[in-house]
Amino acid sequence: LKIGEIATPALLVDLDAMESNLNGMAAFFRDKVCKLRPHFKNHKTPMLAWKQIRAGAIGITCATLREAEILVQHGIDSILIANEIACDTKAERLAELSRLASVVVALDSQCVAKDLARAQRDRNTQIEAVIDIDIGLNRCGVESVEAALDLAKFAAGEGLRVRGIMGYDGHLQSVPQSAERDELIRRGSRTLVDAASLVEGAGIPVSIVTTGGTGTHAVSGVYPGITDIQAGSYLLMDTIYLNRGARFQRSLTVLATVISARSGHAVLDCGVKAISAERGMPALKDCPGAELKTLHAEHALISIDPGSAGGTLQVGQRVEVWVQYSDATMNLHSRFYGVRNGQVEEIYRIEH
Amino acid sequence: LKIGEIATPALLVDLDAMESNLNGMAAFFRDKVCKLRPHFKNHKTPMLAWKQIRAGAIGITCATLREAEILVQHGIDSILIANEIACDTKAERLAELSRLASVVVALDSQCVAKDLARAQRDRNTQIEAVIDIDIGLNRCGVESVEAALDLAKFAAGEGLRVRGIMGYDGHLQSVPQSAERDELIRRGSRTLVDAASLVEGAGIPVSIVTTGGTGTHAVSGVYPGITDIQAGSYLLMDTIYLNRGARFQRSLTVLATVISARSGHAVLDCGVKAISAERGMPALKDCPGAELKTLHAEHALISIDPGSAGGTLQVGQRVEVWVQYSDATMNLHSRFYGVRNGQVEEIYRIEH
Repeated sequence: LKIGEIATPALLVDLDAMESNLNGMAAFFRDKVCKLRPHFKNHKTPMLAWKQIRAGAIGITCATLREAEILVQHGIDSILIANEIACDTKAERLAELSRLASVVVALDSQCVAKDLARAQRDRNTQIEAVIDIDIGLNRCGVESVEAALDLAKFAAGEGLRVRGIMGYDGHLQSVPQSAERDELIRRGSRTLVDAASLVEGAGIPVSIVTTGGTGTHAVSGVYPGITDIQAGSYLLMDTIYLNRGARFQRSLTVLATVISARSGHAVLDCGVKAISAERGMPALKDCPGAELKTLHAEHALISIDPGSAGGTLQVGQRVEVWVQYSDATMNLHSRFYGVRNGQVEEIYRIEH
Repeated sequence: LKIGEIATPALLVDLDAMESNLNGMAAFFRDKVCKLRPHFKNHKTPMLAWKQIRAGAIGITCATLREAEILVQHGIDSILIANEIACDTKAERLAELSRLASVVVALDSQCVAKDLARAQRDRNTQIEAVIDIDIGLNRCGVESVEAALDLAKFAAGEGLRVRGIMGYDGHLQSVPQSAERDELIRRGSRTLVDAASLVEGAGIPVSIVTTGGTGTHAVSGVYPGITDIQAGSYLLMDTIYLNRGARFQRSLTVLATVISARSGHAVLDCGVKAISAERGMPALKDCPGAELKTLHAEHALISIDPGSAGGTLQVGQRVEVWVQYSDATMNLHSRFYGVRNGQVEEIYRIEH
């Protein structure tokens, strides 16, 4: 299959860039005590999760119970759901899944601990949890190391297997590197390690102290006591992360076709149903003088500088658009095409 | 199935509201010369397209060749692709589809007319087209009635069956009703009818002069010479359209579960992967004192006024979020639940 034969709009990944990112992150962790537990929510692609495990990852992180179920279906047996779940039916699904693989879930409330304990008794299995601490993102998690200790003791008392501590420094992923930012990252890591010590002091063995993302891994990944980092964006990258100064290469584009053109103006067959603008407007790749101005549901509207060297866009011509926000864009597709030297080498299935 | 048993996040439609919208729009067109050809791109749900046809629609409008293929697979035999397609393989797919149903495609360039003519010869079939005129949206379409006439003659000369004229007044859908806005809508309709007269004068019979949407149908739907209106949003509605003063009821919500809560703060398990914020932030339904502040990929962050009568949100509690932009939100789901009086009456499959 040649790129010219793919029906548009379609998601492409540059395999050279992706492999460089894969190997670069693996090299970072190779000589570290801390290991990589990469996030699945970003690519939702079991074949890529397996590439990450073969490159040294100790397991896979995910955001939802559904993603954990997909991972288990694809033979991955060490999973962290780095997010809270709530309600009886999800507790039951998690208990069922725990019979098949090691699945650790984030926990920040007693009421969910009780639901999980009931579900594991009903299914005669063992649910594993990490206590989630809010280290500044202001999303989920308990608010102090003392609250984490209390919840760990409560959950263990209910019969859950408490594996340790997690906290996500999502608010720092987008902050450019500086001494102050690095100190904030270390402060978050310190909170997690402190909580882990308290929990161990209470006689609950701690094997997981997990945090971090692509933007912060270089600091939290060398903080003593942190066991693993949940970075996910590094593999495919998007324009947001690139702008944040990360050292990985963006690899994702949406391939589109010019469906209408006139002087100074062209329209592509990709809108917000094919490429996300939730975190800013995507940009055209290799189209000097042309600028993507607006996304409709199924259209991208392009303005062309008539004096530019790039000249015009012709109806039928193919154009690539850099993915600005990979997480939400992958979610719009059911497959993507791995390309190298203008050829499609692999077709990856995205699971939902 | 009770609403409480649906796994979250999930898309719900209030059947009373949807049926009121369905019947209200059908009643508008019942005594008109102009008819309804409702847009499929909004709901992507063949069962709803069939409801619209049973309520009097003369066919279905869609945005992509893929949607036309889905409609044909579901037995709908009169389809308008109100959008340009380009490239050989799509021309061939359209030719193939034209063997199975009446599929009319929008056309705004000679080069695509040639591709379509070649494809219909190769497949021994007849492709039908309408000439697309830009009536102010500044997206696709030729720029004048003279250009429309030229392209109609060219396309007919190539052997395509030119059925008439289309133009979409998308730029006016969001403008509040006023005498000036209505005059702009009529000006667009007049352009289309003028072009149709020119084309008929050149000996090409015109049976379709199509335009309009939910926001403009009341004006363009009574303009003499307009044969049909492509409104789609009216059926399910969303908060954007409601804010534009349309007389239909919003029917769509995303059902979510509170997965984390503390004083003044709660987190739902629905982010931009379940509900679009591409056209503004969605709002909570029936949660006085609580406000949806931010959407992450899988989370909605809620701020709660501690002094409000609504009080707090509890972990495990279910909350509905009004869909702000239905087009992009339907695109994130593979099914939705039709509810009435707290019960699930129907489960609709969304086709992608």
